[in-house]
Amino acid sequence: MIPVSIVNVTSYTGLELLRLLAGHPEFVVTSATGRSAAGQRLDDFFPQLAAGRNHNPTGHNIGSLVISEKAEKTELAFVCLPHAAAATTVLELLAQGSKVVDLSADFRLHDARVYEEWYQHTHPAPALLETSVYGLCERYREQIAASQLVANPGCHSTTAILALLPAVAAGLIGPDIVVTTLTGISGAGRGLKLSSLYCEQDEDASAYSLSGHRHLPEIVQELEAGARDGGHPIQLRLAFVPHLVPMSRGLLATCYADKKEPSLTIEEVRAVYTAYYANEPAIRVVETAPHTRWTSGTNLCYIYPTLDPRTGRLVVVSCLDNLGKGAAGQAIQNANLMCDLPETAGLPTSSLMP
Amino acid sequence: MIPVSIVNVTSYTGLELLRLLAGHPEFVVTSATGRSAAGQRLDDFFPQLAAGRNHNPTGHNIGSLVISEKAEKTELAFVCLPHAAAATTVLELLAQGSKVVDLSADFRLHDARVYEEWYQHTHPAPALLETSVYGLCERYREQIAASQLVANPGCHSTTAILALLPAVAAGLIGPDIVVTTLTGISGAGRGLKLSSLYCEQDEDASAYSLSGHRHLPEIVQELEAGARDGGHPIQLRLAFVPHLVPMSRGLLATCYADKKEPSLTIEEVRAVYTAYYANEPAIRVVETAPHTRWTSGTNLCYIYPTLDPRTGRLVVVSCLDNLGKGAAGQAIQNANLMCDLPETAGLPTSSLMP
Amino acid sequence: MIPVSIVNVTSYTGLELLRLLAGHPEFVVTSATGRSAAGQRLDDFFPQLAAGRNHNPTGHNIGSLVISEKAEKTELAFVCLPHAAAATTVLELLAQGSKVVDLSADFRLHDARVYEEWYQHTHPAPALLETSVYGLCERYREQIAASQLVANPGCHSTTAILALLPAVAAGLIGPDIVVTTLTGISGAGRGLKLSSLYCEQDEDASAYSLSGHRHLPEIVQELEAGARDGGHPIQLRLAFVPHLVPMSRGLLATCYADKKEPSLTIEEVRAVYTAYYANEPAIRVVETAPHTRWTSGTNLCYIYPTLDPRTGRLVVVSCLDNLGKGAAGQAIQNANLMCDLPETAGLPTSSLMP
Amino acid sequence: MIPVSIVNVTSYTGLELLRLLAGHPEFVVTSATGRSAAGQRLDDFFPQLAAGRNHNPTGHNIGSLVISEKAEKTELAFVCLPHAAAATTVLELLAQGSKVVDLSADFRLHDARVYEEWYQHTHPAPALLETSVYGLCERYREQIAASQLVANPGCHSTTAILALLPAVAAGLIGPDIVVTTLTGISGAGRGLKLSSLYCEQDEDASAYSLSGHRHLPEIVQELEAGARDGGHPIQLRLAFVPHLVPMSRGLLATCYADKKEPSLTIEEVRAVYTAYYANEPAIRVVETAPHTRWTSGTNLCYIYPTLDPRTGRLVVVSCLDNLGKGAAGQAIQNANLMCDLPETAGLPTSSLMP
Repeated sequence: MIPVSIVNVTSYTGLELLRLLAGHPEFVVTSATGRSAAGQRLDDFFPQLAAGRNHNPTGHNIGSLVISEKAEKTELAFVCLPHAAAATTVLELLAQGSKVVDLSADFRLHDARVYEEWYQHTHPAPALLETSVYGLCERYREQIAASQLVANPGCHSTTAILALLPAVAAGLIGPDIVVTTLTGISGAGRGLKLSSLYCEQDEDASAYSLSGHRHLPEIVQELEAGARDGGHPIQLRLAFVPHLVPMSRGLLATCYADKKEPSLTIEEVRAVYTAYYANEPAIRVVETAPHTRWTSGTNLCYIYPTLDPRTGRLVVVSCLDNLGKGAAGQAIQNANLMCDLPETAGLPTSSLMP
Repeated sequence: MIPVSIVNVTSYTGLELLRLLAGHPEFVVTSATGRSAAGQRLDDFFPQLAAGRNHNPTGHNIGSLVISEKAEKTELAFVCLPHAAAATTVLELLAQGSKVVDLSADFRLHDARVYEEWYQHTHPAPALLETSVYGLCERYREQIAASQLVANPGCHSTTAILALLPAVAAGLIGPDIVVTTLTGISGAGRGLKLSSLYCEQDEDASAYSLSGHRHLPEIVQELEAGARDGGHPIQLRLAFVPHLVPMSRGLLATCYADKKEPSLTIEEVRAVYTAYYANEPAIRVVETAPHTRWTSGTNLCYIYPTLDPRTGRLVVVSCLDNLGKGAAGQAIQNANLMCDLPETAGLPTSSLMP
Repeated sequence: MIPVSIVNVTSYTGLELLRLLAGHPEFVVTSATGRSAAGQRLDDFFPQLAAGRNHNPTGHNIGSLVISEKAEKTELAFVCLPHAAAATTVLELLAQGSKVVDLSADFRLHDARVYEEWYQHTHPAPALLETSVYGLCERYREQIAASQLVANPGCHSTTAILALLPAVAAGLIGPDIVVTTLTGISGAGRGLKLSSLYCEQDEDASAYSLSGHRHLPEIVQELEAGARDGGHPIQLRLAFVPHLVPMSRGLLATCYADKKEPSLTIEEVRAVYTAYYANEPAIRVVETAPHTRWTSGTNLCYIYPTLDPRTGRLVVVSCLDNLGKGAAGQAIQNANLMCDLPETAGLPTSSLMP
Repeated sequence: MIPVSIVNVTSYTGLELLRLLAGHPEFVVTSATGRSAAGQRLDDFFPQLAAGRNHNPTGHNIGSLVISEKAEKTELAFVCLPHAAAATTVLELLAQGSKVVDLSADFRLHDARVYEEWYQHTHPAPALLETSVYGLCERYREQIAASQLVANPGCHSTTAILALLPAVAAGLIGPDIVVTTLTGISGAGRGLKLSSLYCEQDEDASAYSLSGHRHLPEIVQELEAGARDGGHPIQLRLAFVPHLVPMSRGLLATCYADKKEPSLTIEEVRAVYTAYYANEPAIRVVETAPHTRWTSGTNLCYIYPTLDPRTGRLVVVSCLDNLGKGAAGQAIQNANLMCDLPETAGLPTSSLMP
């Protein structure tokens, strides 16, 4: 078994990592940190992890792990801290020799000026930005396997990039793109915010971040890189508006783009998508509009490319579980690659439905 | 008091009309039809309308009304039937001399060929289509007041048209438009469909009608008419994708369009919107992204125009209650105009929140 | 118009009072306080109250009211503060000569020792406790009308007391009673608590306060008083367990009690309930199990008494909107009585459904 | 691998069996029936099971299984039919030599007269009723392992019986018992019923089956048997009222009973519960009120016994996933015993949360 740690286990992402790693054949969580909960047992903080008074658990009982203030050295660490706080911790972990999957935004953008523009914060290790690997396995499988530090992509970013990557790489579409996303509330995290209250989100839909969402520069960086690597460089004019809808999990992107060639058919589009994702274990290119619920608890992303019959635009609908392929699932997929394990180890493909 | 009837009262739209008309100062429901429930009292069918065993209700008690098979003649009828069935009934009611607000799609489109293309049904009275009035009060107030038949707009259509009308009428935007809508489940009606089950929609988001939603031709018809009447005729290239999200009520549209003049500022846009809707009682042009819940139970539509800071596109977010301004509320607003009553009579402006 | 004030308008109860009073024929809100929001306009704090940029509102525009630190003197004040804070403010308002409806628990219990046992706080005006009026209109209509201070009942309490009052007053049941309640999340208020987050309550049901909920002593006080006044004094042995369920509004109580006379029939029970609530405008004694949604946005309480066919126990199911008859609605019903207005003025009876 | 079949796979229970069996180390689904869907592939009916256009699945691909009209012979069959229909099929499967876990109510009651009273249907094999095994593993582990036919308990029944069994077996409580349950909507199945529509259940709580729910006789049969086998025979006077609350999954029971000995302490109660469920893998006796969400997707049942501090009554709160330990999970637990596999094989213990 390979010992791993979860930094900031008290987040929703931390909790989802605990759930997935409980079923992982190789990784075992031997360390978990959480500033506010340091000194408590995991099952004090998350009572559902308690083994029960009636048990004398033998072997590994995750609930008995004591939450620590600082991460101990393990083979690999999953860092679930917010941006800025994450970078500092990541540097320490790297110095200790741990492999790191950073679930924050701190190492996703390769250009420090872009990072500072969007996050209003001077990056502590700008040189690392240039060499950090963006943890989208479908794009950077080899680099991830060889890297000590992987920046796990954002949830909106993953959904939108996977939806459009085959089209930009094949040069099918022009630069004018609109991306609309719908996200469940867990994307806002477990912090105490008025807008995260049940009574504020129940029965409500709204658009947010209209002046610019922080996942936008990731999307543009990766789509432009994908276009360049595909031999069809392009400078995108991409508008992205996320929406909050009343559900715990789920992220759905609907992406609109103009075809370069009016004659492009849906069969040709599908052939491009099918080939691009041939045998990708986490991607399902489908022929009907997908539902976020198909992905609950899994590491899957469903992608449905189609053509708008009246305007001819390419419309791609994609969806995933924002805590799964959008966060903890993808982090484990990355960790599997980094530790030379089967890429799909410990990652469910059957969704909880209903 | 003015006697009115509700045809197909057993629908969600019928129930919302009952709720709103219970608080209306002039209209009183004296007839209600519903094929499957004919012969029952309203409070047998909707037990929440029962006065209670402890009451000896004096005066008007709506629960005691017996649901009939066919509408009796009243001053005005609200028709809540599905399309095709509606047209037949509307013709009979008009022949009886009733005023009619038709909440179906049967008289919204002025071109019979377009109707037949989208509804796969030969229209029984194509001549009426050419003279029917599209019941968007903010556009056709005088024609509505003078008409015997008003076609109440669709819920997606109302939200999208109100969002973009000022921009097309003032010639601010070009023909390339993307409209994304998010709708609550009540828009699918009260019929027994697998996709309307609680366990199918709970915790799920999905896009639907990707090959074309029936509200699209209304949107195009009315935006092009608005552009023409504003002196800026245009032929739109509009893509529209609706999404289902897990809530009962609410409809939110996010609309994207290219500015014609790159130099157009947000202040100029706001001035156009403010002037267009000056003192419109059902419209609130606001300066922050609105929430569907602000509209629950009201006849209000909130409209937030903004510019995407990176691409310069005009982005307009609008929202309303699909059973309110998107159906029953707007129907009463139309009926008020047709009966020479104050336009806002009986229409709530305070939303139920939370 | 009668000027009224809302103390702590920033709560859910405050917001519901704003909604209901917007439609009240006599009361007008001329003052609203809220410590954290003092100095802001109401429509800064609740943007849904904004009239819209396109309006030049004439007459009363509630959104423009500036939230103050301290309540100004008005004819009547609704106090929405938490317990302890409420008592201090109530005393000041009474000294100013205002009538007060206190929505907190501070003046509900007549025995200062009981108050201090449950609220862990020394009561600042124990003498007032003995003379304060419990604002359950169906019980204390005359005293309420004559009082300067009315203690608005708790939401669980109202639902359970109304369910069992006819039975104890008529001496139908013995002392062994079990009360189970189900409540929506708004009952927990608008404060930032982990347990109030969307992702903590969505898709979850749980029992809480198993060591004793603060509404229990109210329920016992009022049921025992009702029994005494009905000539059937009794000392109850009442267990009460509330449950949280994922909805914003709604409170449902299921109450179980042993019949005193095994021969008591359901017809006799219904006759007792019907007579007890004869022509009560807020109570509907019904013959089928009621739904909380029948009450959304109203001041109604539905009551369904039945007999368990196997054990013979009396089972009474009652429900209401916890923000309506369970809080703001009942507060207005009390205020109407205190100001000699029709008891039902401004109180909706048609629920928002769906 | 052991081939198994799912009869009526198109139900929610069938779908949950598919999900759980996809992760089972020994069972493989080789046959699935569904009358209305016969001839379709599983992934036509449940599109989330589609492997995706981009895959050339090798090995087992459940989506490609064709739904049949009649079950083929397999080692073991899970029967998810409604009662009455189930019995006929079960008899055929037994005659073929298959082992059967019947998830319907048809073989749960040992007395044919009781069955016929509650199900209004003459039982086709009353002799089998007397020998059928009630599939509550914690009670009948040996009999289950030796049986060809196991009757999987109802979801309300499992929750209530597990909550009270230790108390009745140890003779701690008297005959007067009240059981309140809260259930998610999936308990009503996937059939098209008005009351199962999203807009009918969203934001609503209600009590139902007040004249008697069909799980009541199971509860009484098993608690009385448990009391008898524990040496404390008793005839119960048990009232049971289930409630519907707006969530997909989850079942919570709150049970109230009088202690026989007033001096009984909570420590003694906990000792009895801990001993009764010593090392039971699916049961967690806990010291804080549990949440249904702790059980989502698992085969766990949490049990929290406590004493009401004022009345001294024993109050036990228990919860589980109605599709997990309340249906498909328990069915697999039974199947594991019947096929001599480890009892917990393929049964998740980490819940999906949030």
